[in-house]
Amino acid sequence: MGHKFTEKISSFLFEYDTPRMVLVHNKKVGLTFRLIQLVVLTYIIGWVFLYEKGYQSKDGIINSVSVKLKGIAVTNISGMGPYLWDVADYVFPPQGDSSFVVMTNFIITRGQKQETCPGVCSNLHSLLTILSSGIMTGKCVNFSRTQKTCEIFGWCPVEIDDNIPNPPLLLEAGKFTLFIKNSITFPKFGVSRRNLVEQVSERYLKKCVYHKEKDPLCPVFNLGYMVEESGQNFSQVAFKGGIVGITINWDCDLDWPLKYCLPVYKFHRLYSEKSNISPGYNFRYARYYRENGRDMRILYKVFGIRFDILVNGKAGKFDIIPTMTTIGSGIGIFGVVSACILSLLEMNPKIYFHKSL
Amino acid sequence: MGHKFTEKISSFLFEYDTPRMVLVHNKKVGLTFRLIQLVVLTYIIGWVFLYEKGYQSKDGIINSVSVKLKGIAVTNISGMGPYLWDVADYVFPPQGDSSFVVMTNFIITRGQKQETCPGVCSNLHSLLTILSSGIMTGKCVNFSRTQKTCEIFGWCPVEIDDNIPNPPLLLEAGKFTLFIKNSITFPKFGVSRRNLVEQVSERYLKKCVYHKEKDPLCPVFNLGYMVEESGQNFSQVAFKGGIVGITINWDCDLDWPLKYCLPVYKFHRLYSEKSNISPGYNFRYARYYRENGRDMRILYKVFGIRFDILVNGKAGKFDIIPTMTTIGSGIGIFGVVSACILSLLEMNPKIYFHKSL
Amino acid sequence: MGHKFTEKISSFLFEYDTPRMVLVHNKKVGLTFRLIQLVVLTYIIGWVFLYEKGYQSKDGIINSVSVKLKGIAVTNISGMGPYLWDVADYVFPPQGDSSFVVMTNFIITRGQKQETCPGVCSNLHSLLTILSSGIMTGKCVNFSRTQKTCEIFGWCPVEIDDNIPNPPLLLEAGKFTLFIKNSITFPKFGVSRRNLVEQVSERYLKKCVYHKEKDPLCPVFNLGYMVEESGQNFSQVAFKGGIVGITINWDCDLDWPLKYCLPVYKFHRLYSEKSNISPGYNFRYARYYRENGRDMRILYKVFGIRFDILVNGKAGKFDIIPTMTTIGSGIGIFGVVSACILSLLEMNPKIYFHKSL
Repeated sequence: MGHKFTEKISSFLFEYDTPRMVLVHNKKVGLTFRLIQLVVLTYIIGWVFLYEKGYQSKDGIINSVSVKLKGIAVTNISGMGPYLWDVADYVFPPQGDSSFVVMTNFIITRGQKQETCPGVCSNLHSLLTILSSGIMTGKCVNFSRTQKTCEIFGWCPVEIDDNIPNPPLLLEAGKFTLFIKNSITFPKFGVSRRNLVEQVSERYLKKCVYHKEKDPLCPVFNLGYMVEESGQNFSQVAFKGGIVGITINWDCDLDWPLKYCLPVYKFHRLYSEKSNISPGYNFRYARYYRENGRDMRILYKVFGIRFDILVNGKAGKFDIIPTMTTIGSGIGIFGVVSACILSLLEMNPKIYFHKSL
Repeated sequence: MGHKFTEKISSFLFEYDTPRMVLVHNKKVGLTFRLIQLVVLTYIIGWVFLYEKGYQSKDGIINSVSVKLKGIAVTNISGMGPYLWDVADYVFPPQGDSSFVVMTNFIITRGQKQETCPGVCSNLHSLLTILSSGIMTGKCVNFSRTQKTCEIFGWCPVEIDDNIPNPPLLLEAGKFTLFIKNSITFPKFGVSRRNLVEQVSERYLKKCVYHKEKDPLCPVFNLGYMVEESGQNFSQVAFKGGIVGITINWDCDLDWPLKYCLPVYKFHRLYSEKSNISPGYNFRYARYYRENGRDMRILYKVFGIRFDILVNGKAGKFDIIPTMTTIGSGIGIFGVVSACILSLLEMNPKIYFHKSL
Repeated sequence: MGHKFTEKISSFLFEYDTPRMVLVHNKKVGLTFRLIQLVVLTYIIGWVFLYEKGYQSKDGIINSVSVKLKGIAVTNISGMGPYLWDVADYVFPPQGDSSFVVMTNFIITRGQKQETCPGVCSNLHSLLTILSSGIMTGKCVNFSRTQKTCEIFGWCPVEIDDNIPNPPLLLEAGKFTLFIKNSITFPKFGVSRRNLVEQVSERYLKKCVYHKEKDPLCPVFNLGYMVEESGQNFSQVAFKGGIVGITINWDCDLDWPLKYCLPVYKFHRLYSEKSNISPGYNFRYARYYRENGRDMRILYKVFGIRFDILVNGKAGKFDIIPTMTTIGSGIGIFGVVSACILSLLEMNPKIYFHKSL
């Protein structure tokens, strides 16, 4: 019995079945077969291995974006006098996040305090305004000499936002510059990199401005240029506000020197042009203060351009495991295709004429 | 020699080996074999090709979210008088980011200035409070008529946050509405889209409120509804603060008209109910002012609901390359499975009875 | 005719071709063949099935991060007196987002108002400062007793940021603690989890501080420790500002009890050490107030450490479909490899000596 078992094991280990092959002499079929094999081999080696870099191990990105704006604008609104706006005044939030808003236009309501005052409720639109600005007391008061209106309790005087200033008050924002600092890390490969690459020297940085062809690596951007590049009209966006998406793409082949790992900047309009419903971008913002022992605030309805910076990236580096896996699956696909064609030929014996056994 | 080489080349190109096939007549085995082939074919065509849309090229999403809140609330706290809170007062940050907080409750400490004052250190909990509110001077002073306490230097008077107002002061926040503007772009296909889809007309938008069954496309959301939908109790969340995740899902088949590419909104509780450690969501926030030449501040301990909006999306469109690849790998799998079964049959010659050579 | 058709159908259904196999008796070749099969089988079962968990269905993560800082610092700047900084003063933004800045150093410019004043334009660097701080009026005025300078209109007095305080004013920030609350949800599996896991009891939480070996699950972090762990020097980062990336990794096998699903914290430097161009992290921030009926502001140039928290995660759970698919493709690969080797053997008949027909 033990002998029989040993025999079986030995037979399993040292013997194997192999199909007997048949040689086919037919030039057309033979050539076609080799051609298909060539195409498959080209696909595997050319596309999967070389183009898709199947020999590399891949890694995602960890990144950090910080931005800094430069530029000043002057407004001269009645009741406010000449007023200079610098970066601390027109950027929200101040800390320079990857998503931020640059104020380009505003409606200011000064000296608001909590009390009763006449609301604006002559038509449906204004009624809505009131509902979001105060509570009706039920009394009827004079709004202007000719108009009577309902009295409200809330932040008084009430904001009147019917007329958005045109041209936009901070149209000069088009000349502001944005400095983007972007640091990335590929944790798996232990590689860190900044968008201040080798080509961007300290001297170059001081005077360069991004241009998609002439200065594609300069990290200083002109706001107007970015808006136009995204396919929007700057003064139109500045008037009612808008959104611009900035993508930074890092596609790094770490088998090459690190200096070839460069960022690519792109600008996207994130609204379709046709839509007229709820266009623009605005928000309300208040500065609080105290005067004569009372809580006061200055209310701004801010129209601005929101910039959303999105960083994408991937890196690849030669690694033995993906190389082996790719070669393995390549051989596999090659084998399967060859086998397939052979079976197809077998199934249709008429397509080859002469069969030499 | 050259002749021999040419012969070899010609033999390589025009000849190939093909295994001789054996016909098996066995109804049971034959039927099983065809059945398995059918299952595999169904899987490849039905699942991979049609369900998973293997004939499409895919693309990820670039998106931008901006939000706008509407609603007012009135509080009447002793020492503060009637006070109306509008959107500029209760939303953090003001610019309408995809992550924002709506204040629902607060503890206010008015008129803080830098000086020495009695701290609150009667028990361990309060001692911690002090450690984070000022530096002990080492003196011992009267806190109330009956209690003596240690003196601190810092923002005085010290915040006393033992009693969180209940019911929450801005419980009316449940009636506030949130308007979400979401723009997406599939850069590869050059397709842009907003959540203000065709079905959302200007007129509809003015009066609609989201309901998961009746108005699943309305981009105006009731805060209370969202909190309840996420599986939480609104007044409980309003009391101590909480977090609600909002996901917007865009799953677009661009082979169909664009109007079928629609957003799906979902609400998630991001805390498990059972956990009692560190529940709620709160933060401290100060409004600075100057009075009589001194820096002053009003300190708010804000309890609120944080909304995190997350946009997911993918698009697919017919493309010849993935179609070819899918068909190719489908044929491959089919071939392999067929070959496998055949070898299995070969290895167990007993399972078919009659073998015609 | 119908008879012939039925015959064909029946032949298609119940018959199939099977290649005739050839038995090879050669110990070396046989052993090699079995060895290769063993390697492939080990790869499929060991790597794909067990290590890569090919039997599981996977899911991505929805998450929410909120942070809370604790700690106070005291500064004593001339003209400002002793001043205590608490969490409402040094964190930007206040609401505890996943990306926030802790102020560690600052340059303060008090009492700015809109008027004309002497700018600072003695050299190129200062000229740039002026260009971003006001508009030149064209007049020439005394800046100090010895220096004449151009007059500007803007926020006056102008910020002078030539001397960054060293040592940093809020060096004590190194002792501040950061409490991270992270809630995650795997929507597909309906599983929610917090970083306050079972091991973190209320008692433990009150006194624990994260240490990568001793307390790897404590969600309270020392700012100094985090900066050092990221490979940076705290006092250097505190001086000019910097960025620290915090990653929280959730890699959960939901076939095991949920308590083994634990977060892993890591800290990353996001700047390369060598780069001297535009180091640090700073931004300008203003506190507005009114005095004697005029708009005033206090301008801070804030140097701080920005923390970017990034949550990654995936979960896997046993599912019948991926199990089947993995087994299927495993059999496929196994079959292909076996077939490949056999064909290779066939192509080189010399490598085996004896062929028994």
